[in-house]
Amino acid sequence: MFEAILENVSQKVPIVHAITNYVTVNDCANIILASGGSPIMADNIYEVEEITSICHALVLNIGTLNDVLVESMVKAAKRANEIGNPVILDPVAVGASKLRTGTVNRLMEEVKFSVIRGNISEIKAIGLGTGSTKGVDADEADAVCADNLEATIEFAKKVSYRTGAIIAISGAIDIVTDDKNTYIIKNGHGMMAKVTGTGCMLTAVIGSYCGANKDNLLEATAAATAAMGLAGELAHTKLVQNDFGTSTYRTYIIDYMSQMNSKILNGGIKIESR
Amino acid sequence: MFEAILENVSQKVPIVHAITNYVTVNDCANIILASGGSPIMADNIYEVEEITSICHALVLNIGTLNDVLVESMVKAAKRANEIGNPVILDPVAVGASKLRTGTVNRLMEEVKFSVIRGNISEIKAIGLGTGSTKGVDADEADAVCADNLEATIEFAKKVSYRTGAIIAISGAIDIVTDDKNTYIIKNGHGMMAKVTGTGCMLTAVIGSYCGANKDNLLEATAAATAAMGLAGELAHTKLVQNDFGTSTYRTYIIDYMSQMNSKILNGGIKIESR
Amino acid sequence: MFEAILENVSQKVPIVHAITNYVTVNDCANIILASGGSPIMADNIYEVEEITSICHALVLNIGTLNDVLVESMVKAAKRANEIGNPVILDPVAVGASKLRTGTVNRLMEEVKFSVIRGNISEIKAIGLGTGSTKGVDADEADAVCADNLEATIEFAKKVSYRTGAIIAISGAIDIVTDDKNTYIIKNGHGMMAKVTGTGCMLTAVIGSYCGANKDNLLEATAAATAAMGLAGELAHTKLVQNDFGTSTYRTYIIDYMSQMNSKILNGGIKIESR
Repeated sequence: MFEAILENVSQKVPIVHAITNYVTVNDCANIILASGGSPIMADNIYEVEEITSICHALVLNIGTLNDVLVESMVKAAKRANEIGNPVILDPVAVGASKLRTGTVNRLMEEVKFSVIRGNISEIKAIGLGTGSTKGVDADEADAVCADNLEATIEFAKKVSYRTGAIIAISGAIDIVTDDKNTYIIKNGHGMMAKVTGTGCMLTAVIGSYCGANKDNLLEATAAATAAMGLAGELAHTKLVQNDFGTSTYRTYIIDYMSQMNSKILNGGIKIESR
Repeated sequence: MFEAILENVSQKVPIVHAITNYVTVNDCANIILASGGSPIMADNIYEVEEITSICHALVLNIGTLNDVLVESMVKAAKRANEIGNPVILDPVAVGASKLRTGTVNRLMEEVKFSVIRGNISEIKAIGLGTGSTKGVDADEADAVCADNLEATIEFAKKVSYRTGAIIAISGAIDIVTDDKNTYIIKNGHGMMAKVTGTGCMLTAVIGSYCGANKDNLLEATAAATAAMGLAGELAHTKLVQNDFGTSTYRTYIIDYMSQMNSKILNGGIKIESR
Repeated sequence: MFEAILENVSQKVPIVHAITNYVTVNDCANIILASGGSPIMADNIYEVEEITSICHALVLNIGTLNDVLVESMVKAAKRANEIGNPVILDPVAVGASKLRTGTVNRLMEEVKFSVIRGNISEIKAIGLGTGSTKGVDADEADAVCADNLEATIEFAKKVSYRTGAIIAISGAIDIVTDDKNTYIIKNGHGMMAKVTGTGCMLTAVIGSYCGANKDNLLEATAAATAAMGLAGELAHTKLVQNDFGTSTYRTYIIDYMSQMNSKILNGGIKIESR
């Protein structure tokens, strides 16, 4: 499964343009490299169009926003839309402030997103215009579990239909869906929440995978989600063996992403497609 | 000792709002997580009040300053003061430029700080209006040692009295004091100075511990200082066994912070209270 | 070879002022420390002159540019020129956008650079006014190899003559030259390209070595280049033994830089001087 997706990344070495937050930017650059892509972080409004024109995907992450950044995002994204590059949005902590909600609304009005990836609280904030975002983490009350899985999938499909974007909801159970097809992915480990930016990193990997698979974005997004989750699982197994802590865990997650291939992925993937 | 402090962090998972420099921001976020808190880095003036309102502590770090950042700091801190959240200041390299000194003076005029943490040169710059700050590191001539310990404690108490903040001076010997009670802490390792941001990271941990212990800020600050120092010691012991260098050391420090608990802390703490 | 260069770094602990990008800034600070220097990252126009005045070298890196940053760079560099501090330029991805090319042109007009370090595509963009920069990485078509080595050295010498700066070209074969003397260095490992910022880190180390060796900048730049390459080689050997990935590799590179000394350097250096 996903052999062609990974093969395309490996062959094409997609250049990923990221306009992202300064907290996790280094990890995002390193995991794009680890995933087989080549990162370029450029946010100056006077160059974002040129930069995005030599890239294969654009990732927008609103983790730390300033007004200049939003204008750069809009400009870069319009150009990416023009040339047919996938544009991926990570609406970090949308719902936690009017600024974030307003920014996401504006971006969604002006830009055609290929993929929107967030935790369940962030996707609720987008889909329902409301949400109980608890800072950068999902509210526990929102968590996707067996009981609300079907309802959450239906909700995600509706958000996808309304936004025109693939919706990727991250959590203990990941959902990746457009308004027709859905992947349910159960890879990952709860300790990933103890490393800052694992969500941002996943979004960056989605950028890399989508950049090399423009005609197959749903599968690319699902493959990236499964690969990141599996990297987190494998890293946790190794971590337990060595009795280390959360910073070594961060290192191992990126390490395993850099070693990911179809064989490893298919050896550990826990996915359901419908 | 400090069992209740650590237990409160563990129970409450304090959300720490940090307006901090872009050099060490990722390490600060990760060590807040490692210490048991939840970080949110947000510096946009249009959202800092909302963000700080959902948090339990606010950390201000002037490592890389721009004018916009200072206005955001003032706005966030005034709101934190209003709602009774502890506000912690890390006056990085104050005394090294008029901008830094002016900024700290302005912040101290407009904001009620709960804790100010710096190296001895930085605290001297605040307390005496002068200092021999050598870039981001303390001047060796200022170092706290057995000979000047008593005088330094008296000085720290005066700064605390004048500022109304707990003063935490980091170095080979750490001093944590308000104008009445003092903790003298001898944990830590000299090699911590070879990792950028160990000071910033300690300030972030103080934010986390204080956020969960609003009624006991002096003990919370002392506990955070001891925990960080001990993490640095344990990390160094492990580092020597493995013959690695400064980057592995950084990883180990955060690792040990993520494994810290009352039993480990009390097994290694070197503290005197008076 | 280079014993005096490394001894001077160790004795003087040069303070390196870096105005650099927010992607790799933490790695740059940590590798300056690892190399024996002391980093200070300060980019506010109201303090850069004061800050640079207490430093021994200035590093300018255009990885993530904004207009304010460029003004700060010019102001800091003019002051560094006045006081005789070496100024090192890392023209990240110059040629990839008009903004980057225009910025580098302006910097070269207003500032006297001691060293310019880039990959071959970046140095071509500077030397020929054109280049095929592929994002932040060198274009494969530009790669320095046995066949074009002599021609590339001649080209580098001309760029050095025209700019007045030592030119350091990084790649599988590194060239460090002024318009008279040249070092050809074959240390390093291809996997270094899978870690973001290894180029930025090398530039930071050059700042550290040059800051402690103001009268011997060519040798200092060559020594830094060899030390970084050797750190990358040693780190790769260790990595293979442990079967880890790219994030552990990053950690090991900085680790080996922190353990570098004349004995290790001379045990592994692959250098030709002419």
